[in-house]
Amino acid sequence: MESFIQYDASCDFPIQNLPYGVFSTPGDVTPRIGVAIGDQILDLKAVRHLFTGPLMKGRQEVFAESTLNAFMSLGRPYWLETRSTLQKILSKDDTALQGNAELRARALVPQGQATMHLPAHIGDYTDFYSSIYHATNVGIMFRSKEKALMPNWKHLPVGYHGRASSVVVSGTPIRRPKGQTQPVEEADPVFGPCRLMDFELEVAIFVGGPPTQLGSTVPASKAHEHIFGMVLMNDWSARDIQKWEYVPLGPFGAKNLGTTISPWVVTMEALMPFAVDNFPQDPKPFPYLQHDDKYNFDINLIVDIKPENGLPTTVSRSNYKYMYWTPKQQLAHHTVTGCNINPGDLMASGTISGMASDSFGSMLELSWKGTKPIRLGDGSTRKFLQDNDEVILRGFCEGDSFRVGFGECKGKLLPTLDA
Amino acid sequence: MESFIQYDASCDFPIQNLPYGVFSTPGDVTPRIGVAIGDQILDLKAVRHLFTGPLMKGRQEVFAESTLNAFMSLGRPYWLETRSTLQKILSKDDTALQGNAELRARALVPQGQATMHLPAHIGDYTDFYSSIYHATNVGIMFRSKEKALMPNWKHLPVGYHGRASSVVVSGTPIRRPKGQTQPVEEADPVFGPCRLMDFELEVAIFVGGPPTQLGSTVPASKAHEHIFGMVLMNDWSARDIQKWEYVPLGPFGAKNLGTTISPWVVTMEALMPFAVDNFPQDPKPFPYLQHDDKYNFDINLIVDIKPENGLPTTVSRSNYKYMYWTPKQQLAHHTVTGCNINPGDLMASGTISGMASDSFGSMLELSWKGTKPIRLGDGSTRKFLQDNDEVILRGFCEGDSFRVGFGECKGKLLPTLDA
Repeated sequence: MESFIQYDASCDFPIQNLPYGVFSTPGDVTPRIGVAIGDQILDLKAVRHLFTGPLMKGRQEVFAESTLNAFMSLGRPYWLETRSTLQKILSKDDTALQGNAELRARALVPQGQATMHLPAHIGDYTDFYSSIYHATNVGIMFRSKEKALMPNWKHLPVGYHGRASSVVVSGTPIRRPKGQTQPVEEADPVFGPCRLMDFELEVAIFVGGPPTQLGSTVPASKAHEHIFGMVLMNDWSARDIQKWEYVPLGPFGAKNLGTTISPWVVTMEALMPFAVDNFPQDPKPFPYLQHDDKYNFDINLIVDIKPENGLPTTVSRSNYKYMYWTPKQQLAHHTVTGCNINPGDLMASGTISGMASDSFGSMLELSWKGTKPIRLGDGSTRKFLQDNDEVILRGFCEGDSFRVGFGECKGKLLPTLDA
Repeated sequence: MESFIQYDASCDFPIQNLPYGVFSTPGDVTPRIGVAIGDQILDLKAVRHLFTGPLMKGRQEVFAESTLNAFMSLGRPYWLETRSTLQKILSKDDTALQGNAELRARALVPQGQATMHLPAHIGDYTDFYSSIYHATNVGIMFRSKEKALMPNWKHLPVGYHGRASSVVVSGTPIRRPKGQTQPVEEADPVFGPCRLMDFELEVAIFVGGPPTQLGSTVPASKAHEHIFGMVLMNDWSARDIQKWEYVPLGPFGAKNLGTTISPWVVTMEALMPFAVDNFPQDPKPFPYLQHDDKYNFDINLIVDIKPENGLPTTVSRSNYKYMYWTPKQQLAHHTVTGCNINPGDLMASGTISGMASDSFGSMLELSWKGTKPIRLGDGSTRKFLQDNDEVILRGFCEGDSFRVGFGECKGKLLPTLDA
């Protein structure tokens, strides 16, 4: 499969990928839907008349929206037909777009000229905790090796509701928060700037398909129909604030200071060729969580830290395949008590850590609670993040002479206001 | 202050109240904004041309919306002018509406003929845990009298993010969920219908004013500008599911099965005459949580349980004034790390229990973990809720020969599907 648009083998966005995003340009500031191809964006609003398949012919207007929600709501048959049409009109053998210079000029926008926006209106955002190595690391640090995993952890994908309003698109600066912490155990808390600011390397699914009804459930065996695609996510975390606030109802202000996602939603169709065996699960989960097909993915994940005026240093190389619970299981568990889900809902993996110490997905683990500073390329060291550090997440699946990539998920940590 | 619309002193909706809601009728199924007055609804869409004050004159179209979000976003000066206009056109001395039979016929709808909807699109929903008697009761039950309150509890209003999609309006049936529980400590979990289904008596604020920016904060001293009004809330809780799932990230499936709110949003202007002293706070909270003015409210709260085909029995009489943390403090804490808030966000009090055992706000406390069954009027007993029980919350402030009431917040617990 080849496109008439040129790119090399290391490009994140070949014709095998075709992720969806929402962008605007200086010449047209209305956010609109596009597909990444090479270093270009195909403006779907401009080419919506080309979607003439039996399903999408009557639904072309979803590509004139400012978010992906309407398209996400249509369901997989519509997504498949759209993907097929996209691969056709972008192929080197098709002339509808390639042969129409006027349309090409209107519909192809260099990514470098575009501003990316959140791909969807996120109705609800949920964060799971599904990497066994991450949960074990945190358990060892704060409890003990013997009691690292909580009793429920291998029976259900532990998760919690997050704040939807504070999810932002890659590139949005994040402010180091102030808050309450308890630097000395048993002593009174203090108020001031967070001292232990961290990133969390995550991948999140966007929910698709029609809204479900309150009181209904989606078992793992049917969850695929509600999973549209994936983005990278940095779940910024104020560790010292989290430690003081989170008992007994979970993390709150330590998380709602900002959560960054990558702008391009990579579809499950693009990821399916990279499905690998699910993580072995013992004990066997309850039936609502069971599925036989592979729904774990070999996605290389990389975290760079770029100090102000410095070059980026890679601090972690992890992989999505270290997930214990699959997204199908997460979605099934999310709905098991009857919670209704909507297209545009975001459900994140939790921090993804591998077994090796250079594959941990947070500074908390990489520096082992601050006891093992990480050295950056400029000679400086980090236990946690410093002001003006930029955190850059990348992710890609390595195919046979092509990549299915996510692009970047980045954000700069600004100093506290009035500090 | 008297209205030309007749009602008696026990009516929840006198001219001193004027709560906002969203309703539709069999003759016009479009949800639209109304104000409750007596047993009528004043259709604001039908009378929007009467809002000719300097602020609202150019904003009349917010009353043609299907949710209150646009009106909520305008801010307090607009809300005050609107209230003033409403009290004028509903007063017995004004003729604009009273004297116009055709307009009256179009604009006044009997509440009995209307279907109520959610008053706003809820972008994010948060639940606090701010009643000291409730937190103490739960702490004693699950820990000990000495360690009842967690160390952070008196330093910050503990809260957690909830699920916005599963917030429903009064009258919506709630399905008893299935889920994982651990009936025997240390043993394997089991899967099946929730056995310990509970209500939680709460009151929630709707956020108003313009959206705030991520990274900015709202101190308690400025929080009033972002508090539009209040509703009753039943935070349905699956206690056995909650106990197994909630460590370490908080309640999840035990809560997202459904959360019921009352349809009429009682404004802070209507509640201000019932402000009482704030709960004494020791230790003194950090400056961002401090405010001197009274922002605690004397709201009588009543919980009835109505068995199928039976009469309701009052099982609890509580009061909002038992809150330790005020809504201003909750909102300030919610934003202290930079979380952005939007009009239509919902922030709930947490279960409101008084000191006396007949003022507890949940079956968990009323039956003291199932050890003290509650007797209903029909002779049956309850430790927790039974299938087809209807839970009815009511709330009102008692004025001098008038009430400012919330109406009802009710929901029926349906049996598990396929159980």
